[in-house]
Amino acid sequence: MKKVRQILYGHETFPKGLKKSVHKIMSVSKRQGNFSWYFDVFIISLILLNILALVLESVIPIKQQYHEQFVLFETFSVLIFTLEYVLRVWSANVKPKYSRSVIGNFKYACTPLAVIDLLAILPFYLPFLGIDLRLLRMFRIFRVFRLFKIARYLTALELMERVLIKKKEELMVSLIFTVFLLLLASTLMYYVENEAQPEHFSSIPETMWWGIATLTTVGYGDMYPVTGLGQFLGGIIAIIGIGLFALPTGILAAGFSEEVSQKAKKEGACPNCGNINN
Amino acid sequence: MKKVRQILYGHETFPKGLKKSVHKIMSVSKRQGNFSWYFDVFIISLILLNILALVLESVIPIKQQYHEQFVLFETFSVLIFTLEYVLRVWSANVKPKYSRSVIGNFKYACTPLAVIDLLAILPFYLPFLGIDLRLLRMFRIFRVFRLFKIARYLTALELMERVLIKKKEELMVSLIFTVFLLLLASTLMYYVENEAQPEHFSSIPETMWWGIATLTTVGYGDMYPVTGLGQFLGGIIAIIGIGLFALPTGILAAGFSEEVSQKAKKEGACPNCGNINN
Amino acid sequence: MKKVRQILYGHETFPKGLKKSVHKIMSVSKRQGNFSWYFDVFIISLILLNILALVLESVIPIKQQYHEQFVLFETFSVLIFTLEYVLRVWSANVKPKYSRSVIGNFKYACTPLAVIDLLAILPFYLPFLGIDLRLLRMFRIFRVFRLFKIARYLTALELMERVLIKKKEELMVSLIFTVFLLLLASTLMYYVENEAQPEHFSSIPETMWWGIATLTTVGYGDMYPVTGLGQFLGGIIAIIGIGLFALPTGILAAGFSEEVSQKAKKEGACPNCGNINN
Amino acid sequence: MKKVRQILYGHETFPKGLKKSVHKIMSVSKRQGNFSWYFDVFIISLILLNILALVLESVIPIKQQYHEQFVLFETFSVLIFTLEYVLRVWSANVKPKYSRSVIGNFKYACTPLAVIDLLAILPFYLPFLGIDLRLLRMFRIFRVFRLFKIARYLTALELMERVLIKKKEELMVSLIFTVFLLLLASTLMYYVENEAQPEHFSSIPETMWWGIATLTTVGYGDMYPVTGLGQFLGGIIAIIGIGLFALPTGILAAGFSEEVSQKAKKEGACPNCGNINN
Repeated sequence: MKKVRQILYGHETFPKGLKKSVHKIMSVSKRQGNFSWYFDVFIISLILLNILALVLESVIPIKQQYHEQFVLFETFSVLIFTLEYVLRVWSANVKPKYSRSVIGNFKYACTPLAVIDLLAILPFYLPFLGIDLRLLRMFRIFRVFRLFKIARYLTALELMERVLIKKKEELMVSLIFTVFLLLLASTLMYYVENEAQPEHFSSIPETMWWGIATLTTVGYGDMYPVTGLGQFLGGIIAIIGIGLFALPTGILAAGFSEEVSQKAKKEGACPNCGNINN
Repeated sequence: MKKVRQILYGHETFPKGLKKSVHKIMSVSKRQGNFSWYFDVFIISLILLNILALVLESVIPIKQQYHEQFVLFETFSVLIFTLEYVLRVWSANVKPKYSRSVIGNFKYACTPLAVIDLLAILPFYLPFLGIDLRLLRMFRIFRVFRLFKIARYLTALELMERVLIKKKEELMVSLIFTVFLLLLASTLMYYVENEAQPEHFSSIPETMWWGIATLTTVGYGDMYPVTGLGQFLGGIIAIIGIGLFALPTGILAAGFSEEVSQKAKKEGACPNCGNINN
Repeated sequence: MKKVRQILYGHETFPKGLKKSVHKIMSVSKRQGNFSWYFDVFIISLILLNILALVLESVIPIKQQYHEQFVLFETFSVLIFTLEYVLRVWSANVKPKYSRSVIGNFKYACTPLAVIDLLAILPFYLPFLGIDLRLLRMFRIFRVFRLFKIARYLTALELMERVLIKKKEELMVSLIFTVFLLLLASTLMYYVENEAQPEHFSSIPETMWWGIATLTTVGYGDMYPVTGLGQFLGGIIAIIGIGLFALPTGILAAGFSEEVSQKAKKEGACPNCGNINN
Repeated sequence: MKKVRQILYGHETFPKGLKKSVHKIMSVSKRQGNFSWYFDVFIISLILLNILALVLESVIPIKQQYHEQFVLFETFSVLIFTLEYVLRVWSANVKPKYSRSVIGNFKYACTPLAVIDLLAILPFYLPFLGIDLRLLRMFRIFRVFRLFKIARYLTALELMERVLIKKKEELMVSLIFTVFLLLLASTLMYYVENEAQPEHFSSIPETMWWGIATLTTVGYGDMYPVTGLGQFLGGIIAIIGIGLFALPTGILAAGFSEEVSQKAKKEGACPNCGNINN
């Protein structure tokens, strides 16, 4: 018992020390074998098991056979996630940014990761709040937010995040370009194919489904032009679709190359010549 | 009233000053909060709303319910766009390139952006010119040019434009290569599959539809070889299709890398070593 | 008449001068407005018209209506191409490589471009040689070689050729990798799906058709796994298929980057810093 | 006879010399025309013929006609491969790593290449060990491991291996990202489309099959959303799928570029400037 107190409180007095310890346990541990590290492993495992349960529960025979176990596991998970959420919000004051007593906690509760934590447990509590059952069904989709809870632990995503942020603008332009092309392709194709296939190319929004399938080269085959002019136009659009892959890929390739160059630079060597005093 | 005059005319005498002010308002503003900036925002919003109207109008139930509103909005938009077009052509003389009175205006009216502006409003005026109704239906497709009007404001496209212009030649060769491959693949496949599926692979132009779907990896599934030789040939063509993605992507990746290097160079530093005096 | 003689023979005596002049006219001109240049334009146009004829002739209604014109044009084209071929082989002696009288001509006739020239006219002469009509039908496909004749003039392909040759080895390994993966994927999928869909996954060669459609992400939709295990395996193979695009693209992107760097180097400047004395 | 002994034993005494010679023959030869080189060619040919046999045997008419030949060839191949496996394990002691008598041999037998060698011959011996026939059918799939035996000889894969190992982490993150996206896309799509198409989008694992076909842009067309919301969601997922190609491609492009730079560096020249004393 004494040991636990020591671990939890450290050398500090009760209320402040406890909050600090809780915060330390809650934040992602960088050292293996730590108490905080075991907590991380536990939460990650619970998240992964929740995702597995979500996936398996959608299979009707499995759901019918293990219905009780699923309910039990769901209750257990939500209790743990609720405790985790409450402790995270409560202990947020430790960070200088959220140090003010109630306002700080509220501020932390508005950060994306905290909102995700809340949304992931919300559907469980809604029936107690007297929410309509039909609306509740829709809210069940919120359980998928438990998948996002894992983002906190994916530190390996950092390099990608850095590249994506750096190339944000160019990627954005690629996206605008894609939407622009989609609108153009779908409008033209609608006017060309509507008469020949009024049941498939019935409106521009409907034709956009064809446009996306073609520009992304998915090509489900549920919609395709049948007139000569439509196929000619479709062919040109499909070839332009290649460019839609080339643009972001080229941007990201340049981004990753830069990132590597800069890393080498920080280490003091020219990435090309390998000489320190270049 | 006085303030408006001051804003519009500046310190210059009436006719020349007005033209200059109008030209200034018409051109893309670089500073937020300007009168010219508000004008840009208004035109961009109107363009986006027009595209939305074009898309929604194609949905039959929506069109039937809001028919009057669509007609009203169309009339209003065309009036604004006509006014915009007239003012743009009229005020073009301000630019040294188009300074000669009538010839300069005509010259400006022949630039791609001005032609797009004209085509975007043309279908509205055609019935007044006594154009045949059936031809008119075809002209309605011109409303899609309103989408292109937005190109004037997409300054973010500049980096991409620069890369594309720089790599114009290589990308052109990629395209020639694609067309060459498409011709070859379709001709061969036509000879191989025509006998087994005369209804699908009925001619080389028809087979090109398969060729594009395969080389771009869209693969709708409405046409595919069924004979052994046809599938062998189709497999080789599909694998070569991977190269069709690799070529432009490689070219653009190199282009974006160079662009980044040159930008760093202009800023006086070696992009690799980060040293100024390299 | 005198002028033509001067142009053709130059300042040299008859037999040798004529051969030299013919060779000069035959080879690709680098200067516009030349007689040799007009000859190039004529041959390129004839090739393009031949391809157009080949494509249009495959459309049955067009073929029936313009049958005579097609025959006339074919006869005219073959005569020109035959003359071109004979003159090319005859004048090959001008090049030091092929200078020996008969052996040199024969050697030139064995180069890929000369073989293509021969194959492009061969199907026309075969009936005169008493070839079986059924075999002749097969030979008609040789007309597609006229498409390749244009390769002689596509000097713009050079950069690509250089990059492809430089990266030959890596691209070859990519291809081996692809074939390896295809064999593995098809064999495994055959064992998994054969029982459930014996009509589609009837043998490994048949399953390879699915394998190619999946690895290249074409996905026609004529074959796909339906069992749980088959879909799991298919999913993994499809994801690996992404890598099949990434490998050659990455290789070519590096190739184009190098090419640009080396070009800058030849021009005496560091491509990064732009300084001459680096 | 004497010559063979000399080749096999070299200048060393019997038992040790033989083992060394066998090991030398077994390992991949770097010099053409060697005895060891001929052995490599023989084994590679046998592997390729085995793969051919595996593929052809799956075609029922071929299997029925040449059943005996296939059995004979299989027996012959397994005998050779068994001899090869035994000799490889026996002669492994020559390598310092596996020098200890029995333990060393066992250690070598646990390396991936040796395990593959064993698995490739195992299905042949299982009936002698009294394995159930139904289980045996499943084991026949192990014959595909003969395909992997060729990995030992593909030294050309080295560059790719180096790039892949170097970028292991980033590629891993790409994969995690893909799985994450797949889970998210499939869960959302299941909730959206389940009601409209309960027979196709019957559960999340089932919907994953759609998710993979869409994210990898294969698009078989056996499953696709039909509701408006489903198509909207599907469109966004398909566009994100483009990023799934861009990420690994960008990573690999950077990897190949680095590899080239480092190779040039080792050769003592700056890859950009070409100067030795940079």
